[in-house]
Amino acid sequence: MTSRQMILGMQFSGGYGAAPGAWRLPGANLNSYTDMDQFVRYAQAAERGKIQLLFIADTPVLDVDLDHHAPHHMIDPLLILTVLARETERIGLVTTASTTFTEPYNLARQFKALDVISNGRAGWNAVTTSDPAAAANFGATIPPRAEKYERAHEVIQIVQGLWGSWEKDAWLLDVDGKRFADMDKIQPVNLQGKHAASRGPLPIPPSEQGQPVIFQAGGGSYGLELAGRYASGVYANPYTIEDARAQRKALRDAVKRAGRDPDEVKMLAGFMPTIAPSRQAALERRRFLDEVVDLNQRVRYLGAMIGLPLGPAQLDEPLTADQLADAIPSPHDPRSARALEVAREGWTLRDVLAHGVIDYHPVVAGTAADVADHMQQWFEAGACDGFSIAIDSYHDGFDAFVDQVVPILQERGLFHDDYEGPTLRENLGAHEQYGLDPRLTRPARS
Amino acid sequence: MTSRQMILGMQFSGGYGAAPGAWRLPGANLNSYTDMDQFVRYAQAAERGKIQLLFIADTPVLDVDLDHHAPHHMIDPLLILTVLARETERIGLVTTASTTFTEPYNLARQFKALDVISNGRAGWNAVTTSDPAAAANFGATIPPRAEKYERAHEVIQIVQGLWGSWEKDAWLLDVDGKRFADMDKIQPVNLQGKHAASRGPLPIPPSEQGQPVIFQAGGGSYGLELAGRYASGVYANPYTIEDARAQRKALRDAVKRAGRDPDEVKMLAGFMPTIAPSRQAALERRRFLDEVVDLNQRVRYLGAMIGLPLGPAQLDEPLTADQLADAIPSPHDPRSARALEVAREGWTLRDVLAHGVIDYHPVVAGTAADVADHMQQWFEAGACDGFSIAIDSYHDGFDAFVDQVVPILQERGLFHDDYEGPTLRENLGAHEQYGLDPRLTRPARS
Repeated sequence: MTSRQMILGMQFSGGYGAAPGAWRLPGANLNSYTDMDQFVRYAQAAERGKIQLLFIADTPVLDVDLDHHAPHHMIDPLLILTVLARETERIGLVTTASTTFTEPYNLARQFKALDVISNGRAGWNAVTTSDPAAAANFGATIPPRAEKYERAHEVIQIVQGLWGSWEKDAWLLDVDGKRFADMDKIQPVNLQGKHAASRGPLPIPPSEQGQPVIFQAGGGSYGLELAGRYASGVYANPYTIEDARAQRKALRDAVKRAGRDPDEVKMLAGFMPTIAPSRQAALERRRFLDEVVDLNQRVRYLGAMIGLPLGPAQLDEPLTADQLADAIPSPHDPRSARALEVAREGWTLRDVLAHGVIDYHPVVAGTAADVADHMQQWFEAGACDGFSIAIDSYHDGFDAFVDQVVPILQERGLFHDDYEGPTLRENLGAHEQYGLDPRLTRPARS
Repeated sequence: MTSRQMILGMQFSGGYGAAPGAWRLPGANLNSYTDMDQFVRYAQAAERGKIQLLFIADTPVLDVDLDHHAPHHMIDPLLILTVLARETERIGLVTTASTTFTEPYNLARQFKALDVISNGRAGWNAVTTSDPAAAANFGATIPPRAEKYERAHEVIQIVQGLWGSWEKDAWLLDVDGKRFADMDKIQPVNLQGKHAASRGPLPIPPSEQGQPVIFQAGGGSYGLELAGRYASGVYANPYTIEDARAQRKALRDAVKRAGRDPDEVKMLAGFMPTIAPSRQAALERRRFLDEVVDLNQRVRYLGAMIGLPLGPAQLDEPLTADQLADAIPSPHDPRSARALEVAREGWTLRDVLAHGVIDYHPVVAGTAADVADHMQQWFEAGACDGFSIAIDSYHDGFDAFVDQVVPILQERGLFHDDYEGPTLRENLGAHEQYGLDPRLTRPARS
């Protein structure tokens, strides 16, 4: 038992689930990509489970071959969160938007509007864009990293400044006195950076949580500095507990350097569970999901991870004793040790891959208890403050996680029994902030 | 009787109504500006009246003194239309978005997403931005007119190109064949202009109407050319039937010059009715709405319109016989003749102003029949193809228009009895188009 409890987010990436083959799963709605009723149903399931937030990952580009896979991203994150805001009550609504290719005034306006429409449940995952194909959608190229992050600092500060441009008590609504608002409390922000600027004010009053919560994702020293200064939540992609603890320490140090309290910032580790009545059934489900994946390519990559020349011919056989004797986890891929560990259990290579050893988050394919055990182990090791759950397929995965995993976590005292309050800030334990953070010492203000 | 019937749009400008004092009207919801439930109620009322479309006018700026007036614009047009899309079935959803200060990829994505979410009911009023204060919100200045319109052509073509980048039959959803889509039919658009560019494709399938409908507003030869080439609907602001007929002729000529059929393009004239059981009650309502207006300034402007030095001291008196003899309508303001006509009826200056003679659209303050008569007169004179109704206050004005004026128009055969179909294109009689218009001879494609 621990007195601290984990923060959970359910992640949307595309219309069907985190697995590229989710669209084919029996029972899945084939039109889910464009069918808002489906997302409403998933969001309501997550809210039934008291999940703190929904998160839509996004890059403004088609970055997947649609011949076999569904798109990685939703048709439009802010519009979908607006739909969900109207049909849920408590769950937080967070999405990525690029600081590189969106005007800060437009960003500030749409996120603040979502915050007002959702009664204080919006969050912005403020990330820079790295994909040249995304840049090409804006007729641009990716700027150098330093410049990209310089702009990101400016954009976040301008957005926060605009969010606070209508003071908390500016809205009077005094019918008899004929005063709609107090214009002395609605002033231009006049923020001028090197890459972005805005005069303001933004004509939107505060929401129930004041203004949206900032999230951050993406590592490196630049990303850490950004998270340290502005974020209340951070999406991280560690593959092992050790890796996660190191990332969390680096984050907390960056927060301290920015003059803030590290407990203000929650690190959510990406996690891809497949939940089934048994480990065998979970593997069978993942084998089906893998049918659209190029396994020939993956088995060769698996070989590179464990230092063996593997090929498609061996897909349905396990490693031989000789191969196991020669295998060495690659130091270049943090997933390699886990890959070899699974291979040593004697699974065929197809099943080793079905365990998710090459997925972009740690995978547990097993029972609800297996999934809860993994989460408990990570959480109690101080690897993270919570998880961003990339469930394999939404159509039954949301229900399975909420109805089977959440009760175990609650029983073990690891997850709250109900929402702390109506706003995302309350449920995230995020600090109060309105407008720019007064503790910041390097504002973009000219 | 006429075989042609009018197109009607209900306009949202701000949270309360077209009158600056609408927020104070007894019965109005004071939080309406941020309360989506109110807008849903208004939208559902309009749909009950078979109104073809809702229109949100927008400029990304606070351009009103909030001390006494509510904001002119909504908190965010696309997010609000998304809310309305989910809680209506047939009515079209149109909003302004600036071609000057928004990236075409972001525009294309959000409007196409709205079109998909609404099952084919979205429209984009593509306008250039002229307000320097709006430009300052983007750290910019307003470009020269020619350059602004050159960019507008590029942005509209890029947006239309992106809309068509996922071919109509690209989405396969073939579970057994493991084919999600046909990537041969989802290709980059590679549109490169002088001011804007995008590679694409946009990963959103067609909606029930293919892609959103283009609207245009704003006159001059540049605006006419834009409308002629791309628009299916045009928002116009004529003050008189003569003025309207001239504008409509100029528009139809511009459409012909672009090689299109003028009947494809509908001109909607802005119109501000105040509906009450009697003309006296309508004036009383408008006097109350005017309480937050600076009437001292308005009475001086009224004087300039009719060639008399008028001041606030005369507000509650009519013009004298001597004044009436000296009065001459100013040739510089097309509203002057109507102002003098009302003054000649013997109203006090406060009541002359309450007739709306200085408002930014023609005003009828009277009974539902008065309102219907005005609309019939304009429509039958060929002044317009329909109206964009800027009702004084939404909270009772939507119901009054729908329950009192619409039945009269229907009885007179001037307005349809039901929606022609489920999409905006069907209800507007707009031509089919997917992707760029193949008739255009000057594409932005490099």
